[in-house]
Parts: sequence; C-alpha cells; structure tokens
Amino acid sequence: MRILVINVNTTASMTRAIGAQAVAAASSDTEITAATPRFGPASVESIFESHLAAVGVIDCAQRQAEGHDAVILAGFGELGREALQEMLDIPVIDITEAAAHVACLLGKSFGVVTTTDRAIPAIEDRLLIDGLRSRCVGVRAVERPVLEIGDDLALTVDEIVRVGSGLIHDEGAEALCLGCAGMAGLSQRVSDVLHVPVVDGVAAAVRLAESVHHLGLRTSKIRFYAPSPDKAIAGWRFIPSAGDETSGDG
Amino acid sequence: MRILVINVNTTASMTRAIGAQAVAAASSDTEITAATPRFGPASVESIFESHLAAVGVIDCAQRQAEGHDAVILAGFGELGREALQEMLDIPVIDITEAAAHVACLLGKSFGVVTTTDRAIPAIEDRLLIDGLRSRCVGVRAVERPVLEIGDDLALTVDEIVRVGSGLIHDEGAEALCLGCAGMAGLSQRVSDVLHVPVVDGVAAAVRLAESVHHLGLRTSKIRFYAPSPDKAIAGWRFIPSAGDETSGDG
Amino acid sequence: MRILVINVNTTASMTRAIGAQAVAAASSDTEITAATPRFGPASVESIFESHLAAVGVIDCAQRQAEGHDAVILAGFGELGREALQEMLDIPVIDITEAAAHVACLLGKSFGVVTTTDRAIPAIEDRLLIDGLRSRCVGVRAVERPVLEIGDDLALTVDEIVRVGSGLIHDEGAEALCLGCAGMAGLSQRVSDVLHVPVVDGVAAAVRLAESVHHLGLRTSKIRFYAPSPDKAIAGWRFIPSAGDETSGDG
Amino acid sequence: MRILVINVNTTASMTRAIGAQAVAAASSDTEITAATPRFGPASVESIFESHLAAVGVIDCAQRQAEGHDAVILAGFGELGREALQEMLDIPVIDITEAAAHVACLLGKSFGVVTTTDRAIPAIEDRLLIDGLRSRCVGVRAVERPVLEIGDDLALTVDEIVRVGSGLIHDEGAEALCLGCAGMAGLSQRVSDVLHVPVVDGVAAAVRLAESVHHLGLRTSKIRFYAPSPDKAIAGWRFIPSAGDETSGDG
Amino acid sequence: MRILVINVNTTASMTRAIGAQAVAAASSDTEITAATPRFGPASVESIFESHLAAVGVIDCAQRQAEGHDAVILAGFGELGREALQEMLDIPVIDITEAAAHVACLLGKSFGVVTTTDRAIPAIEDRLLIDGLRSRCVGVRAVERPVLEIGDDLALTVDEIVRVGSGLIHDEGAEALCLGCAGMAGLSQRVSDVLHVPVVDGVAAAVRLAESVHHLGLRTSKIRFYAPSPDKAIAGWRFIPSAGDETSGDG
Amino acid sequence: MRILVINVNTTASMTRAIGAQAVAAASSDTEITAATPRFGPASVESIFESHLAAVGVIDCAQRQAEGHDAVILAGFGELGREALQEMLDIPVIDITEAAAHVACLLGKSFGVVTTTDRAIPAIEDRLLIDGLRSRCVGVRAVERPVLEIGDDLALTVDEIVRVGSGLIHDEGAEALCLGCAGMAGLSQRVSDVLHVPVVDGVAAAVRLAESVHHLGLRTSKIRFYAPSPDKAIAGWRFIPSAGDETSGDG
Repeated sequence: MRILVINVNTTASMTRAIGAQAVAAASSDTEITAATPRFGPASVESIFESHLAAVGVIDCAQRQAEGHDAVILAGFGELGREALQEMLDIPVIDITEAAAHVACLLGKSFGVVTTTDRAIPAIEDRLLIDGLRSRCVGVRAVERPVLEIGDDLALTVDEIVRVGSGLIHDEGAEALCLGCAGMAGLSQRVSDVLHVPVVDGVAAAVRLAESVHHLGLRTSKIRFYAPSPDKAIAGWRFIPSAGDETSGDG
Repeated sequence: MRILVINVNTTASMTRAIGAQAVAAASSDTEITAATPRFGPASVESIFESHLAAVGVIDCAQRQAEGHDAVILAGFGELGREALQEMLDIPVIDITEAAAHVACLLGKSFGVVTTTDRAIPAIEDRLLIDGLRSRCVGVRAVERPVLEIGDDLALTVDEIVRVGSGLIHDEGAEALCLGCAGMAGLSQRVSDVLHVPVVDGVAAAVRLAESVHHLGLRTSKIRFYAPSPDKAIAGWRFIPSAGDETSGDG
Repeated sequence: MRILVINVNTTASMTRAIGAQAVAAASSDTEITAATPRFGPASVESIFESHLAAVGVIDCAQRQAEGHDAVILAGFGELGREALQEMLDIPVIDITEAAAHVACLLGKSFGVVTTTDRAIPAIEDRLLIDGLRSRCVGVRAVERPVLEIGDDLALTVDEIVRVGSGLIHDEGAEALCLGCAGMAGLSQRVSDVLHVPVVDGVAAAVRLAESVHHLGLRTSKIRFYAPSPDKAIAGWRFIPSAGDETSGDG
Repeated sequence: MRILVINVNTTASMTRAIGAQAVAAASSDTEITAATPRFGPASVESIFESHLAAVGVIDCAQRQAEGHDAVILAGFGELGREALQEMLDIPVIDITEAAAHVACLLGKSFGVVTTTDRAIPAIEDRLLIDGLRSRCVGVRAVERPVLEIGDDLALTVDEIVRVGSGLIHDEGAEALCLGCAGMAGLSQRVSDVLHVPVVDGVAAAVRLAESVHHLGLRTSKIRFYAPSPDKAIAGWRFIPSAGDETSGDG
Repeated sequence: MRILVINVNTTASMTRAIGAQAVAAASSDTEITAATPRFGPASVESIFESHLAAVGVIDCAQRQAEGHDAVILAGFGELGREALQEMLDIPVIDITEAAAHVACLLGKSFGVVTTTDRAIPAIEDRLLIDGLRSRCVGVRAVERPVLEIGDDLALTVDEIVRVGSGLIHDEGAEALCLGCAGMAGLSQRVSDVLHVPVVDGVAAAVRLAESVHHLGLRTSKIRFYAPSPDKAIAGWRFIPSAGDETSGDG
Repeated sequence: MRILVINVNTTASMTRAIGAQAVAAASSDTEITAATPRFGPASVESIFESHLAAVGVIDCAQRQAEGHDAVILAGFGELGREALQEMLDIPVIDITEAAAHVACLLGKSFGVVTTTDRAIPAIEDRLLIDGLRSRCVGVRAVERPVLEIGDDLALTVDEIVRVGSGLIHDEGAEALCLGCAGMAGLSQRVSDVLHVPVVDGVAAAVRLAESVHHLGLRTSKIRFYAPSPDKAIAGWRFIPSAGDETSGDG
C-alpha cells in the first residue's frame, strides 16, 4: 500500500525526519511518500499557525493524495484531520489520535510529553473531541521550540525523560506519547530509561493506517465526513484545479 | 465602542444581514463594522469550508481589526475564534459561545436549531470544547442550505418552529439558540410561537462584546492565547504585511 | 433600564460597596438599586446562613423588584437564584454564574478565589449545576472571613494575589474570578499584579443583565422556572402581602 | 435509637403518612418521631416553596432534634439536607439520596417516578450534586399534584406503573425510586406489577439512618459541614433560642 | 436474618477477622456466616488473583448461600459481585460499594486508603462502574501486602493515618474508606486520630445488607442480573451440582 | 509474527470460525493459532459465564502463549483482558477495545450491535473502563443467542442490518462494531447494505496486535499490569504447572 505522510510545517528537513520514521515503522510492502505543504509556517507553535498549516495540508492532500491508500496528518495536536477525512475517500490518521489509541492498548493510563506549555490546551482539546481524554492523565511540556527539538537530541531525550518521569510518578501515567512530530525516532531511547512504553505518533499512525487499509475499511461518508458540497470559493488562489499546480504560488 | 463583525463566508448580502442584526442589537453608542473576508466560500457548510473560512477571517481581522474594540466571529459552529484571540489584543466573541452563554442565563437547558444535519457534530464539538455542552440537550437541523435560509423567511421560521418544538418537547429544552448566522433576525418570530427565549448568536455576541469591553477586560495572554511567535510563513500570499493589502489578491 | 442588586447579607455597608461597584460597572443609562434584605445573617459563610439569606433575598425581591428590569443576586456561591427566576418575569443573574460566563470569554480556563475553605464545595456545586465547572480548574480560599475582607484592602489584595498566583501556576488558570461580593472593586488591582483578566462578579452580572434586557430576552417560563402554584403558606410571617410590609418585622 | 423524620411540608396528614411509613420500615427498637414544620407550604412543588420549606425544616430540627440519633429529610428532591448536616452532630439522611443509594444496590440502573414535570430538574440537580446521577437513566412525572397523590391510591399506582414502565422499557431502568414522600407505602404495589425493585425513599432513609448510627458514624465536621459560625441574624424571628419556642409564631 | 460473608481469599485467619468484624457490626438478631472459598489465592493482590478469587467466591456462594438472606463479597475492589447478583435471588453487597455509599452519607467527598499502589486502578474502575467515582477524591496506598496488614496493627494504623491525612489535606477528602477487608476493625482508631468518619467496608456492607433485606427488596432480575441460561460447562470440575460437594476437590 | 487468538467459549466450531476470520485479516507473514479453553461454557452469555470463561482463557494463555508474539481475547464485552496483560509480557488485545478503537478512526461516532439485551451493560462497562464510551452512541441487541448466530447467516445479517440501521438513524452512529465474536465474517455484508464502515472485532484485533508488535511496544509493567506476586493458590487444580497439562482435567 502507499501512504502519504503530510508534515504540517514547511521545514523540509523535518519532513525528511518524519518520512524516515514512517519508513522505519512501516511494513516492507508499504510505500511512504513524505510531503511538505507548499505554504505555511516553518513550525507550528500557535493556533494561528495551526490554521495556516491546516490549509497547507489540505492543499497538499488535494494535489498529492491521488494514488495513495491512506493519509497521515503528521502534526501533534494540530487542526485539519476532519477536513481531510471529509475531502478524501481513503482513510486519514492523525498522529495525535494514533498515539493515544496505541497508548491505550499498552497502559491503564498515559501521559503526553509535548514541546511548549502553550500547546497543551490544543492537545487536550483534540483528545477531548476524539473521546480519548479520560485515560490521559496529563500533558506536559519540555519547553523547547519545535525546531530546536532536533538540535541536540541527547538533551532533548534528557528533557523528555525528566518531564515523562513527572507524568509517571506524579500523575500515574503507565505509558507515554511523544507529543511532537519532531520527536520522531526518540521513543526507544526514552523507553530505555523510563521502562514504560513510549509511543511515537508517526510510527503509530503508519501502522494504524496499514491496519485500516488492510481491513478494507474507509471513512464513514454518511454524515460528518460526507463530501463537501461543490461551491464557489471566492479569491482562493492556492487551491488549484487539476493541472494547475503553480497557481497557488504564482 | 467599535465592534468588527466578521462574516465567515464571502456572500456580501449575508454580511449586510448580519451587520443589520448587529446594529439592531447594539447600544446606541456602539459602532458596528460588518466585514466580508476577501476570500473563502460563499457559505460554510463543511469542515473544508470552515478551514478556508477561518483563514479568510484571520486575514480579514489582520487587515481590519485595528481601530476596533472587539471582534465578533459570525459563523455558528465554525473554526477560528481561538486564532483571533491569540492574534488580537481586543476581546473576541464567537456567536456560538455567545448564544450558549446567554441561553444558560434564561433556561435550565437549551437546544440549538441549525441548518444541516452534517453541521451538528461540529457544533457539538465547539460546545464541548467551550465547556457548554452539559446544558445543551440537543442540536437539530432544519435541513436547508445556508444560502436558502433567507429565501423564504416564513418557511424558514416554520421549519425552525417545527424543529425547535421537537427540542422542547422531546429533549426538554427550555430555551433555543438559532444555530446559523443566516437566521439573524428571526428569533422574535420563533419565540412568539414557541413561548421560550430564542437567542440570536449575532445579537448575543454584540452585547457580550460590549459587556467585556466596558468591564475593561481583555483576553488572557499568559498561555493559550499568548501572541504567536514571529516566524517565516513560506509561500503564504494572502496574509499581507501592513500596506500590502493587495498582495493576497494579486 | 433599572437593575435591582440584592446583597445576600444584611450588612448595609456591604450593600453600599456592592451598589457602588454595580454603578461603576453599569451603562450610563442604567439605574442601580442596591437592596439589603430585611432579615438574615450579617454575612453568609455557611449553608445554614445561605438558606436564611435566600429567603431574605426572596422577601426582598418580592417587595422591591417591581419597577425594575432585572435582578442581580449578589452573593458568590449562594442559594436562591432559581427561586428568583421562578418568581419574577424579569431576568435574574447570579454573580457566580456571571463571573464564570465572562471568564470563559477571556481565558481557556479560570480559577476562583474565595474567602474561606468551607465555602469551596458550595461554589463547586453551583458551577456544576450551572454546567460551568469543566473550565474551572480550581477554587481556592484566602481564609479570611467575609466581613474582614474590606478591613485592610491592601492585605486582601495581597492575599488574593497569592492564592490567584497558585491557581495560575499550579492549576493552569488563565483568568480569575473574585469569589465574594465583598471583593468588589479589587479586580483591577489584582489584575495589575498577575497580568490575567480578573472578573468581578457584581460588575459582570450588571453587564450581563443589561445584555439580556436589551436583547429583549426573559427567563423561560415553560418548565423549571414556571410560576409557583398559588398556595397557602402556613405560619409564614415575613412574606408579606402587598401593603403589609411591616408584618415580617413586627 | 430515635429518628426524627421531618416532613418538608406543613400538611399534618402527610406527616402522619410519612411517619407510618417510617415506623413500618424501622427496626423494632427504633423510635420514630414524625415532625411537621411550624411554617411553610402545604406541599412543596416549586423552587420558592422548597426554599421556604428548607428554613421550616431547619427551624423544626433546631427545636426538635435534641434527643434523637438521626434526622431524615422527607422531601424528594428538596433543599436543606446540607444545612441540617452542618447544624447537627447526628447523621442526616435525605430521602432522595437514600432511595438512589439503595436502588444502586439492586439494579444496574434506576429511574425515578415523581409528581410533576417541573420537579424533574431539581431532582436531577440533587442527584448530580450527590454524585448519583450516572446510574439514573431518567426522571419522569405522573403529572399529579403532591396533595392529590393520596386521593385515589389505585389511580396513583396505575400512573406510577405507566410511567415506571416507560422508564424500564424506553430507558433501561432496572429499579425504580418513588420520587415523592407522598408516595410512601405504594412501592410494593408497584413492584408487584412491574417486577422490578421499587424503592421508597422514606423507608430507605430510615434503614440507612439506622445503619449509619449503629456503625457509630457521624457527619464529617472538618470542612463543608463544620458548624456555622456564631453570628447575629438580623430580624429573624422564627429561629427561636432554646426555651423560646413560641417566638416564631407570635 | 442470616448473612453469608464470603472472604475473597483462602486465608482462614482473615475470614475469622472479617467474620468478627461482621458480627460486631450486625444487629443482634442477624446471624453471620463467614465463609472461605475452597480454592483461590491466600490473598488477592493482582488481577489474576482477583479472577481466581471470583470463581472461588462463586463456588462458595453456590454451595453455601442457601438458607441465607443476603451475601456480602468481602474483598475491596475485587471482581465478582455482579456474578453473585445474577446467580442469587437474595441481595448481594460488595464491601467496596458499601463503603462508598456510606461515606457519601457522611462527607461531601471521600478518599480510599488501600494496601498497594497496583490495586488502585482496580478500585477506581469499580467505583467508576458503580457510578460512585465522582465523590471519591482519590485512592492511595499504604504499600503493605494484604497479609502483613494484621501483623503489626499499631504500625498499620499509623500508616493508614499518614496516607489518610494526605487524602484529607491534599485532596479534600472529608471521609475515608478503608480499602482492604484486612483493615477490618481499625476504623475507630484511625478516626480517633484524624477526626473524620472512617468507614469499614465489611461493617458497612453488613448494615446495608440488613437494610435491603428488611426493606423487602431484592436484586432486579429483569435484565443484567437475570439468571444465567442453563448450559453445559465443559471440563469445569469445581462447580459441583447439589449433593456433589466434593467433586471440585476430588 | 505469531498471534494466539483465544476464543472465550469452548465451542470448537466457533474457535474455527474465529481463527478463519483472524487468518483472513492477518498479514501474510502472521501466523494465527486459534485456541479453545480446556474448560468453560459453550457460549458466554452471562456474567457467571464470563467469569468462568475468564479463568479458562487465563489457563489457556498460561499453557499456550509461549512462542507467540501477541494474544487476542476473542469475546466481545467479556472479562479477562487485564489479567492476561498482567500475566504476559507480550501485547494483549481485546476484540471489544480493538473494534472501538478502529471505529473511532472511521466515524465521528459509532454504535455496537450485539447478541442479547442482557449483554449490553457489560459492553457499556467495558467501554467505560477503557475510556471509549464517549464516542459510542449506543449498544443494541439482535436478541439471538450466541450459538444461533451462525445457524442462518442471511437471517443474522438481516437482523444486524435492522438493528444497525436504528443505531445509525436514531442515535447518529456513523460506524458500527459487530459485538460478538460469532459475527466474524459478516461485516462486509452488513456494510454493503448500510453504507457505513462495519468493524469486526477479531479482524481489528489482529491488525492492532500486529501494529503494536511491529512498533516494538509491549504492555506497561510498572503498575497495574505488573506481574502478579508469586503465591500459593489453594485447591486450584486447573492451573497446571508446566508439563502438567492434564491435571486440570484429571
């Protein structure tokens, strides 16, 4: 099968890291396409940026989803999954929900380690809407900007361990989710220290996308995710029609 | 004071109706500016459209909020309020939450009458996130497209009455919210028939915006709504810098 | 419009302070009547006192509401609002719900600073019943009796700042409500130190009362707040009939 | 042991019926005192009446509780239990919570049959505050005034059966609570028809009061139910001091 | 009446202690039979052991319940009550729910002191399923194995006091439940130090069983607890038919 | 990888059907072992039977899990998963949670179609404990015994369609879960008629087990699922030690 993994930000090096993590997690017969939106923020660290990123992701999916069997939204706690589910016939998995679903299979409760304190309410809201909040004992932040996560991985691991340890001992978390696509690849190192399952959202999403695809299941189209009505979109340049892929930039 | 009321869609006639409703609801010393986004869908009836509309609204607020004391997001159940709260120093009120808060002051429970069945989950999610769902006994739809709401107002009123009556008698609603900005101006007519308070979101939002402003209160900026970090936004044409108001269209 | 603000206790100096706060918060064309019940406790700091106060407030509203357009129940976390809503045709606003509703417009979450620890469960219960508890991260007490709140305002402000700071940093509150009518007038001073919106219940209630009134809305009368049946009240002296205003005292 | 059962209304015949039900339910060595408040409504069917009744009950308890080992508040869904718990050292049981606690021991879920539709929200609020709402599948009303409940018992039983049957078959109730002190004595007849346990609140409260007493347990006095501070109560005639039992009436 | 109290483990000395506690709590005309399962773990400290214990308890009830009027499941947070309710016509009370119901009558909130940290989630799940979790502010462990609880009672009391004090002061518990059948008999000593009501589950269950019995109530048999269908049980030796009481051992 | 799928009942034909469904759902390099417990009920349709089945499943896992990489508990709404998680080092997936997790990926809400009405509360409790109840709009039964499900598959499909249609149209379900292991293999036929995703629990569990395994994740062992302490199990014949596989039967 072919999975399109869409990074929510426009930093190509982060797309590459996410893609590598997806490939590492995927079955051997799964082909991964890692895509970067044509526009949007270099990292997504605010609500404003999450909105811009969501339309970048929508644009990216419109242009690139064809030929794939599933799409992954690779932004932890970010907006846009429901729009993709509405827009596409193939399954769409958000790394936030993927991490939480998998964590529920492994521990009685889980915690989330994310980047910055200001991102916490958005993650909590996503879990609440997705009906996954009752087993989440807390979301805590390492207080590092997204784009610095990869600068010094040893330091990042140390910080995730420190924050994760608090979730385990203060809040009773039995499993952890890494709450940033930029933390992809660090789960094993954190788990080695903390001795709890540590779930990487990108990896989890790849396996769940495979699962849903091979089960022959697709998004329900009878109500919330029914196709959007066909309608004039005034002044909207970057949603190109087929064969017009430069109009958004031009 | 001056309130900027932003229609979420790009249909100018609807902006005018919303503006008229806002003016009718406002104090005599409140000045209303009704704004239409430069781009976006003619009506917002899907998740995809809600995302496009949200950035249109953000763009509109960036260009027009200056000089105003509050902003109203005039789209029932739509996305974007938190982004505006993050972006602006002045208070931001969403007509969804405004209607629900006011309905809570008037009845032990309330119901929402909206346009189409597919819009219901989004409204429920907004109320859930806003912590206002426990007193909402149900959201039901008249099953008419947004842009037809105004075509035959007598018929629209009849349908709201029919659906609202179900919410009252089947679900125990004691008050109703009109769950579409296009229903602005119909609340009194519905109330005359059903004998319960019927809350218009635009009107409620205007009065709540006045209230917050005159109380000298502003959005909390310490965490979730703290200003977005300054950052490069790749390929993003329609978020113009100051003095560059045509770049988004050009 | 004319608003009747009913202090829940019988301390006239506190009624004056509440009245002054209401006047300061009100629109210029709103006339405030601050009323003290004819009987009841000097301050309300227990469940017993809250019950006595509620009937004092009911008596006060029966005698004085006529000619007003709205009534405010000025006792944080106290009983009686629903009885007033049932009894009166005009809107009734409780300062507890008013503060919470306004705080919800300003921050992702809010905390309440009240007087004494023993008052906390009653406030939590009121918020629970009013469907406003999910966004309240905590209620904490300065541990000062109600009637000492006004003795040394600088000290009171210091204590509110200390307790409020805990709510912000430990619990994640983004806005605060002052949970005692006796704290009226201190919100700005607390806000100046803590840099979060601080909501005064009396002020919030005045503006919400104005809002509901000018929206032309009234309490729903179809079920929970339908008028009480006419019935003999045995041995009840202080609920005087019209023109018999001394019987309660005599 | 000696239990004081306080009827919330001032109808002596109803006090007698409640007392008879309490005696029938009590252990042979339990002595029941059935008391009628000196003032208050003939029946409690509104929020206003519930407030008046609560102070009547408080007055009654102040005058009569001495010498008893427990107090029962015999009004379904009515106010006042917490005040009695605060005021007294002996255990206080409300028939609402008693019925719900016992129903939880007998069925996976329970429903409540009460008198009038307008009483439903108050009962739901009491169950919510008491943490007992999650197993209550519904509260429904026979739509008969409290004082007519006893007029034609066969008819009342028929109506309880009809409403209870709906709770069982539509909502999945496995047990029923009779939601009015005036329904005392009918539980067996309803149960004979519906073949589910039917809990009478007065009887349940008597047995729970005995249980708590014989377990040597009393109300917690460390916080919410700590004794009310000693304080001047202005103009309050009907809360007599000891030995002044006529001042309330005089 | 006759109550069968079934210890969940196979340690006879613990059955005797539980029986003594039950006798001490019972009415003078209640006869207690304390039973030990024929098979199962010496103490129940894991999920595996709870499952083994549950069938041991089922076997015990099948063999010994006849002639009794109620059954008590004496294992805090353990499995099996619903099976007994389904299997038997007489009322069945679990000490977990019994303690929680009684604690709700005594304090605004309660906490549970149990043996080991790993037992906490199971207790929380039982309270959640039983609809009693909302008033439970926390479950904490003394971290002592069940069978050591009785070794040094003074030490055990000290530890319960330390942990209970944390629940009171950190979490706001107003009452405590002793969350282990092995703590039977210690409630008064803990209460003497902490000055809150301390509920012993065995004692509470005895009084609730008496209450339900004397109220003439039995488990609802219309749905969840309807008798199990008659069916072949392959290879199941220890569920003997009547008169075959040795087959399980043989 | 090798997955052990344990049927909860002792009907070998049902084990074969479950095994076939598991094989059909599995990746080509996954080897399925379908196991039948040595003892237990022919079908699990009561709480009593669920308890017996759970120990049969535990016994089965103890004897057969070695050499496998994951275990699936193939009984919808049945007990025992937590015991297996505690007992084993490899991941354990319950078909109930598997179906619900997958359904959450496909629809805004889901419903469950099960066999008999009496099974509904147990399924609801499992979903509640697993934190998956908020997106489940309802559980409904076809009212056919488990062992008749396979007798007339066309009829069974018709009944699932009828009940599922009610969940979709009355309750708003956007996806369905087949709530009985015996319905394995019918999901596509139901989906063809109802046009919503229909999730088979066995198939979903197989893919989730593969996912967790290939992600390199295992059950958290730090608290709730930590290994059970080593302890004497009195009189327990059917939990054989290694090499003693006949002692349970002998």
